[in-house]
Amino acid sequence: MTSPADIAKDTAPRKVEARLPRGFGDRGPAELAAMRGMLEQIRATFELYGFEAVETPFIEYTEALGKFLPDQDRPNEGVFSFQDDDDQWLSLRYDLTAPLARYVAEHFDALPKPYRSYRNGYVFRNEKPGPGRFRQFMQFDADTVGAPGVSADAEMCMLMADTLEAVGIKRGDYVIKVNNRKVLDGVMEAIGLAGDENATRRLIVLRAIDKLDRLGPEGVAALLGAGRKDESGDFTKGAGLEAKAIETILAFTSAKADTASVTMANLAMVVSSSVIGAEGVAELADIGSLVAAGGYDDGRVVIDPSVVRGLEYYTGPVFEAELTFEVKGDDGKPVRFGSVAGGGRYDGLVARFRGEPVPATGFSVGVSRLLSALSVLGKLGGQAEAQGPVVVLVMDKDQIAHYQKLVSTLRQAGIKAELYLGGSGMKAQMKYADKRGSVCVVIQGSDEREKGEVLIKDLVLGATLSSAPDRDAYLKQQAEAQFAVPETGMIDAVRKVLARHGTHY
Amino acid sequence: MTSPADIAKDTAPRKVEARLPRGFGDRGPAELAAMRGMLEQIRATFELYGFEAVETPFIEYTEALGKFLPDQDRPNEGVFSFQDDDDQWLSLRYDLTAPLARYVAEHFDALPKPYRSYRNGYVFRNEKPGPGRFRQFMQFDADTVGAPGVSADAEMCMLMADTLEAVGIKRGDYVIKVNNRKVLDGVMEAIGLAGDENATRRLIVLRAIDKLDRLGPEGVAALLGAGRKDESGDFTKGAGLEAKAIETILAFTSAKADTASVTMANLAMVVSSSVIGAEGVAELADIGSLVAAGGYDDGRVVIDPSVVRGLEYYTGPVFEAELTFEVKGDDGKPVRFGSVAGGGRYDGLVARFRGEPVPATGFSVGVSRLLSALSVLGKLGGQAEAQGPVVVLVMDKDQIAHYQKLVSTLRQAGIKAELYLGGSGMKAQMKYADKRGSVCVVIQGSDEREKGEVLIKDLVLGATLSSAPDRDAYLKQQAEAQFAVPETGMIDAVRKVLARHGTHY
Repeated sequence: MTSPADIAKDTAPRKVEARLPRGFGDRGPAELAAMRGMLEQIRATFELYGFEAVETPFIEYTEALGKFLPDQDRPNEGVFSFQDDDDQWLSLRYDLTAPLARYVAEHFDALPKPYRSYRNGYVFRNEKPGPGRFRQFMQFDADTVGAPGVSADAEMCMLMADTLEAVGIKRGDYVIKVNNRKVLDGVMEAIGLAGDENATRRLIVLRAIDKLDRLGPEGVAALLGAGRKDESGDFTKGAGLEAKAIETILAFTSAKADTASVTMANLAMVVSSSVIGAEGVAELADIGSLVAAGGYDDGRVVIDPSVVRGLEYYTGPVFEAELTFEVKGDDGKPVRFGSVAGGGRYDGLVARFRGEPVPATGFSVGVSRLLSALSVLGKLGGQAEAQGPVVVLVMDKDQIAHYQKLVSTLRQAGIKAELYLGGSGMKAQMKYADKRGSVCVVIQGSDEREKGEVLIKDLVLGATLSSAPDRDAYLKQQAEAQFAVPETGMIDAVRKVLARHGTHY
Repeated sequence: MTSPADIAKDTAPRKVEARLPRGFGDRGPAELAAMRGMLEQIRATFELYGFEAVETPFIEYTEALGKFLPDQDRPNEGVFSFQDDDDQWLSLRYDLTAPLARYVAEHFDALPKPYRSYRNGYVFRNEKPGPGRFRQFMQFDADTVGAPGVSADAEMCMLMADTLEAVGIKRGDYVIKVNNRKVLDGVMEAIGLAGDENATRRLIVLRAIDKLDRLGPEGVAALLGAGRKDESGDFTKGAGLEAKAIETILAFTSAKADTASVTMANLAMVVSSSVIGAEGVAELADIGSLVAAGGYDDGRVVIDPSVVRGLEYYTGPVFEAELTFEVKGDDGKPVRFGSVAGGGRYDGLVARFRGEPVPATGFSVGVSRLLSALSVLGKLGGQAEAQGPVVVLVMDKDQIAHYQKLVSTLRQAGIKAELYLGGSGMKAQMKYADKRGSVCVVIQGSDEREKGEVLIKDLVLGATLSSAPDRDAYLKQQAEAQFAVPETGMIDAVRKVLARHGTHY
């Protein structure tokens, strides 16, 4: 009969430290209310597009998840894994795509095809945490499996745009950029880096391109050529490409022009005679015209080959949602939020289970990142302000049953209310109500009880009393801030006070 | 530049099996919609009581979670654990209470006291799964920390009742049973089993009592005495109590009478002169009068000492919500759902971190279990029926951009819609819309296109065509089930068809 109390007694000399592992965080009511509101808006938008909900568990066979951690050099690491009692390895999901592939493969015959689904939830990365980098974070994904054509990709781009607007990012404050892995493959072919024998060099090239944002074209050119010495003097060996090849790659990443047709012409040039490259350019053109048909060619969705994140992972079109407005960073310098959602076509993932390619495209919204952005924009709004309960104070401990009755009456009227449950006196009770953000408290001491009354105290109004301009105003305000009513009139009086401050029951 | 497609190619000879580890499950749209609805109702009820949201991560230090897995013989097992890269042990949370204790201890000074919070989410048990027993399941908890008095416990009982009614369990179909660990301690004292030296025997007694439901009083009496031989002939050694002591224990578990006052008198008798026992009885009496003040003494909340589940774990009042209606089991025999929520006072849990006792009380709703119960009651209702999207068919592939435009127009009007994204013909497209539960499809072949029209096909009405009583009725119905409108009238026509079947945009 060892109870927690007993154990606590036993171990009293050695207190356990109350702390979280690095990279994990707690969330309070304001953040949760904001998150709930945002998830609801995303969900409604995904539903509008005809995607249906699906949920897979947090734990899968490690083998089923595979080793496809995108944007990561060592895909084997970064996953929380543990052995089941039959020695098989299990892992916490690191994204929502790998489990979807398992789900689709397992239920393939029963699912409608194309299978269009959405899902959201926390995913886990066993990585070194840092500022803004967590080991548990939330994603919200939409995927279409079994749709070979780029109309499915074009739809993803439009959905990304609509989702950002639904959560409160205004048009012009974001852009959905589209690129295509096949165009990159075409570029590689054009510069003689096709074929298995060049896989390593292609990887070096890709990593160099990925640094475009940080190093600019010159830095990338150096990395593509002989190599680059950084500010600290460290030298990174380059890909050893010739000047002509480097020029072609940079022409690819800077192909975006003012109009889509010029961008397309630029791309056609860089892929030269490559068949796969031409296919990629044609796909981008198709996406462009579908997006235009939907009316999203007004700067919301643009073909922009400078987007290279994920090109290593995806097999066709790649899309990324970027916030374009600037905010002041901690150091006062303007910073951009950058990417809040990304995705692409990954035709090989379900194939691992089925042995035949299954076309699939989708994207993932970084919920936590998007939430930070909205917070900076001041768009979290009313959701974030959860109003506290009406608190019925405990003036006489032998009257608790009656106070409980008052609380129950308030709740039955749909008013958020609670009995003060601590052991402290009047002053602490008022402080408690304040801390909870209560609009008013209900008080019944012996005086009120004898008269069958309760005292309603408006905490919001009460807080402004001292700023009354004169004595008359003060007295009038005081009378409004604290007044007695018969017990039978409590509900109406509380409703009146709550309505004063914008809450209507 | 290894892409999933490349890997799939490489590993093609050895396909990965698409399967879930035992004890884990996937969830489809109907179940998720029902769950979302239920969680929302629970949340609203908890908010009405003044509880505020909090969320802790899925992973904690193993040491912080402690070894308090309730209802389990070997508390060290049953938890998924793994080592961090600094060799510290991490665990997946096995309930929502242990992480709350860590949270409260970590943020103690900043929190209002009492601290009243709710949280929900999946928890994990590394146990042998079985029918209805999962290794990942959802709980929804409410807790008050820092409230020493039983008014906090009484509130939990009322909240449990209101929560069950909010999700659709009708009054009379459930009961909240209340017991008290202190009364049990009093009984142990009365039969001479107090003190550390009797801890092992107390545990045997407790486990025997726990089998009351299954074995009845005779079986439990045997286990409390010399021992019991079960149907298979296996013998379980008993606690070796004397007849008088066994009688006292059974008097305790059967103390519930028709009126609360008689129950109280029975309990006072069994705890005899035990001080802790008398305290426990007084607490139950106080809970009884608080519950009566709230109006919940109409059979919703009852003092019932036959509830022993969790008595080993809790330190004061214990409460359990039981569904009382019977349903037919798979074998046609009536079965009860039993417990769907439970909790109690556990004053020792936060103490592990703080070194001083912190009073706390709370309960946990078994969301998945409650969901099954509602499903059996047919109370999942409309939420479970997610209506499919309006599907715009692809008749001519070179017209996809225009079809996309039709889809965008529908979505802009707030109508759930999608373009058919598969590669198949007309028949497969109709089958797809059917499978998705679509009410209607929009068709534009070359005939319609030339006239600037679209064809609206009502799938629900269409399905009943063959049952028309005569030719006239058939023709009339056919005209309603499939009709052409100018493209500009598409939105109105689709709205009309959706409204026919109960969906209004």
